[in-house]
Amino acid sequence: MVQLTLIQIDNYGPWTVTPEPRRESDLQSLQADIYSDVNQGFGAHGCLAFYNRFDNMVAVSDGTTEEHHRRLQEYLDNHYPVTVSMASASAPTPREAITEATELMQREGSAQDSARESKLVHEGTGHGGVEIAHFDVEDATRRYTDEVDAFEANLRIQRTYSELAAEMWEEHDSTTYFVGGDNYISVTPGLDERDYRSVVDRVEGSTGTELRVGVGEASEPCEAGMKAKEGLEESRDTGTSVEFVRGTA
Amino acid sequence: MVQLTLIQIDNYGPWTVTPEPRRESDLQSLQADIYSDVNQGFGAHGCLAFYNRFDNMVAVSDGTTEEHHRRLQEYLDNHYPVTVSMASASAPTPREAITEATELMQREGSAQDSARESKLVHEGTGHGGVEIAHFDVEDATRRYTDEVDAFEANLRIQRTYSELAAEMWEEHDSTTYFVGGDNYISVTPGLDERDYRSVVDRVEGSTGTELRVGVGEASEPCEAGMKAKEGLEESRDTGTSVEFVRGTA
Amino acid sequence: MVQLTLIQIDNYGPWTVTPEPRRESDLQSLQADIYSDVNQGFGAHGCLAFYNRFDNMVAVSDGTTEEHHRRLQEYLDNHYPVTVSMASASAPTPREAITEATELMQREGSAQDSARESKLVHEGTGHGGVEIAHFDVEDATRRYTDEVDAFEANLRIQRTYSELAAEMWEEHDSTTYFVGGDNYISVTPGLDERDYRSVVDRVEGSTGTELRVGVGEASEPCEAGMKAKEGLEESRDTGTSVEFVRGTA
Amino acid sequence: MVQLTLIQIDNYGPWTVTPEPRRESDLQSLQADIYSDVNQGFGAHGCLAFYNRFDNMVAVSDGTTEEHHRRLQEYLDNHYPVTVSMASASAPTPREAITEATELMQREGSAQDSARESKLVHEGTGHGGVEIAHFDVEDATRRYTDEVDAFEANLRIQRTYSELAAEMWEEHDSTTYFVGGDNYISVTPGLDERDYRSVVDRVEGSTGTELRVGVGEASEPCEAGMKAKEGLEESRDTGTSVEFVRGTA
Repeated sequence: MVQLTLIQIDNYGPWTVTPEPRRESDLQSLQADIYSDVNQGFGAHGCLAFYNRFDNMVAVSDGTTEEHHRRLQEYLDNHYPVTVSMASASAPTPREAITEATELMQREGSAQDSARESKLVHEGTGHGGVEIAHFDVEDATRRYTDEVDAFEANLRIQRTYSELAAEMWEEHDSTTYFVGGDNYISVTPGLDERDYRSVVDRVEGSTGTELRVGVGEASEPCEAGMKAKEGLEESRDTGTSVEFVRGTA
Repeated sequence: MVQLTLIQIDNYGPWTVTPEPRRESDLQSLQADIYSDVNQGFGAHGCLAFYNRFDNMVAVSDGTTEEHHRRLQEYLDNHYPVTVSMASASAPTPREAITEATELMQREGSAQDSARESKLVHEGTGHGGVEIAHFDVEDATRRYTDEVDAFEANLRIQRTYSELAAEMWEEHDSTTYFVGGDNYISVTPGLDERDYRSVVDRVEGSTGTELRVGVGEASEPCEAGMKAKEGLEESRDTGTSVEFVRGTA
Repeated sequence: MVQLTLIQIDNYGPWTVTPEPRRESDLQSLQADIYSDVNQGFGAHGCLAFYNRFDNMVAVSDGTTEEHHRRLQEYLDNHYPVTVSMASASAPTPREAITEATELMQREGSAQDSARESKLVHEGTGHGGVEIAHFDVEDATRRYTDEVDAFEANLRIQRTYSELAAEMWEEHDSTTYFVGGDNYISVTPGLDERDYRSVVDRVEGSTGTELRVGVGEASEPCEAGMKAKEGLEESRDTGTSVEFVRGTA
Repeated sequence: MVQLTLIQIDNYGPWTVTPEPRRESDLQSLQADIYSDVNQGFGAHGCLAFYNRFDNMVAVSDGTTEEHHRRLQEYLDNHYPVTVSMASASAPTPREAITEATELMQREGSAQDSARESKLVHEGTGHGGVEIAHFDVEDATRRYTDEVDAFEANLRIQRTYSELAAEMWEEHDSTTYFVGGDNYISVTPGLDERDYRSVVDRVEGSTGTELRVGVGEASEPCEAGMKAKEGLEESRDTGTSVEFVRGTA
């Protein structure tokens, strides 16, 4: 069981053009600040958020209670010109959890319904143990960052993201996000080495990008994430493409 | 001529795992805060930045001088545990400008060279007039956000991004970024309506996603961006898929 | 028993002038951002921080555990070019608690000892019930903000602060902070109405400033603070100068 | 001639208690973030802001144009749940400048008038050369921070502030702010060494606190502030209590 929370800015699209379009530099700054605060807020409880589409963020929120969610929501509502709604759900796979959280959110009203404001639906039951997979690109700095132009490098990283994320979602019921540089993080339902090898192979086949992955498991999302990073460090040292780190930190 | 600036966090990859891996929620928050400040800094001069890969950001920086760059760099260096290097270049197309800016950066040392710190190479000559194209997805909230789950919607938006960005780069020498929700912004070398129609058609052909686009031109990037948004509003009203807004604001 | 935490930026003075003095606008922004994050961090656990002298902040931290402190400290260390040390202590009065927390901090080394970095000493035992008093100035907007110049108004507010804070500290073992506008907040050891009337009278006598005060008590600092604000609203309505709000929220 | 800008949050007091009182930790964080952004915004133009009473901030804004003010105001309005109004004025002394800026602001409506929103009155004429004095406390870390408790140290610093600020205002038409640690910054109309010695002596006489001061002059506020800091460093080295740094940087 994994608990995910969907965080959606209420009526954001209309707000960005009312009474007339707002400056893009201001919107980029605003979205980044909200996302930073969402990570600081979930991070205080050992959890982690992804920007998804910025106006819709997703947190892996095991162990974060309804009260914690409410506190963060209140903080954001007291801080920004927009409000956010949140819906959490637990399920055996991330795919089911996000699907359920989305349904809970949609039941509260449209993302562009001006009457839907600061809703909170907490059906997450938390605490089941989380598996996190942290992928990065083999030798990315030498091959891309220091070699091709910054936009080509970006295009490759994003194209790789689309392939990796689709593969993890469709074949393994996992949610995957690009987290900067050449890094991708998946929340997974507990996969085995063969699954990861198959994903790495397929992505290399379709994009030419060689990935490595560290996999961590723990009761707290951030701890699982830290173990995944350790696994990735190990894989860098040993040259294997998949490394698991489990058990107590 | 368009001026672009590449902003690169110095030696960031190694820093994130030294002395041991740092928490991902902290890194997400840090990257978002740096990006927000970069937008606030360029925004103060009528410019605009994109997160590219977060550790590498790109600003369309027409009108921003070397002194302005230095002031922002100093602010960031006084504010964060990491430093940034910057390289700006002007060229007839965004593709050439980013290619040149990247070369200037690479000449200063590797992104993972611990001796490269707070470099600034300003070869931008600014002030030529900028064209910005703002794309969004036809009816995205009704079709996707309120309809499918939050991750499927994200997958579609990102896949569309990869197609759109590749098309704009390879066929039209333009840099394109996803800016949240269902929005993409291109910096272009001045394209005509037929170019935009062809891009919109091709993206719909390969992804099934229907795009609209507003195009703005002005001497200041933010002003060009505002006109692009106006064009997009018009296209929403008139039902055309491409709208240009030029001349004085 | 009340738990206070002293948060001190490590070796900050020397850092601000190394290798040469840093811009004051950058330092003001940095200090404000650290303070904001400290409040967001303690706020996530129902607590509250004061800026004290900005390089030394003080939180009323009942209910915040060692692990919570460590998480916030790690966040700050991952976010800023400076590190912070923290020391918490519980005692029957705020005066004793801050005295003890300061001693614990000083034992770890000087504020300008470059070898003292990211220390955490948690001797707070939390959870005893907190009393918060929220003072403001009778009719401040009409009498001062809209009437005299902005600096004279500031001088009066700060002079009133010095008198109020000294009186509360010396006579009532309480720590008091200016929190913006015309507002002051005290953490108190549980005082009675006569005590508050005497403080209000003395401050009026020495500065001519008329204060009102709402007093709240709860197990969580933020809840106590909310009740204090309710008390202040009541006092505004009823015209009394001291109002208590106790019991469940 | 010096240019000062008064920045006032519109209708802030009522907002903090509507529909009911908001959490103090959220308000502290909000005020700090606005203040940080105001410093980043003015800092981008070589200027500097002080928190005054947080809901009323004051910037020394020489060289910042009406357009610069508007851009910052728009940024803040796009970023926060409250709006700000701004009024700038130039005058031979800071005292006259802030008095005039306050009158311009008051003419736009009360600080608690809900109809006054995002006003901007720019009567500053900029560019006359600015003198900044940076005071700190002789040996503050050894004598206070490492010696007495954190609140006693704060009380002394604030009491010293009230004396210093009143003396500078009443005798020398200067605005003075506490900027953290044991530091105070004055914007002055150009004083001579005897003036500064007299202030330092009087403050020591009434509070027992020994001050030093560095004084800088330049056309840009931040540059003047940097020279003041250099002066302070020199005074630390030479043991004199007043040091001037003038001429080109």
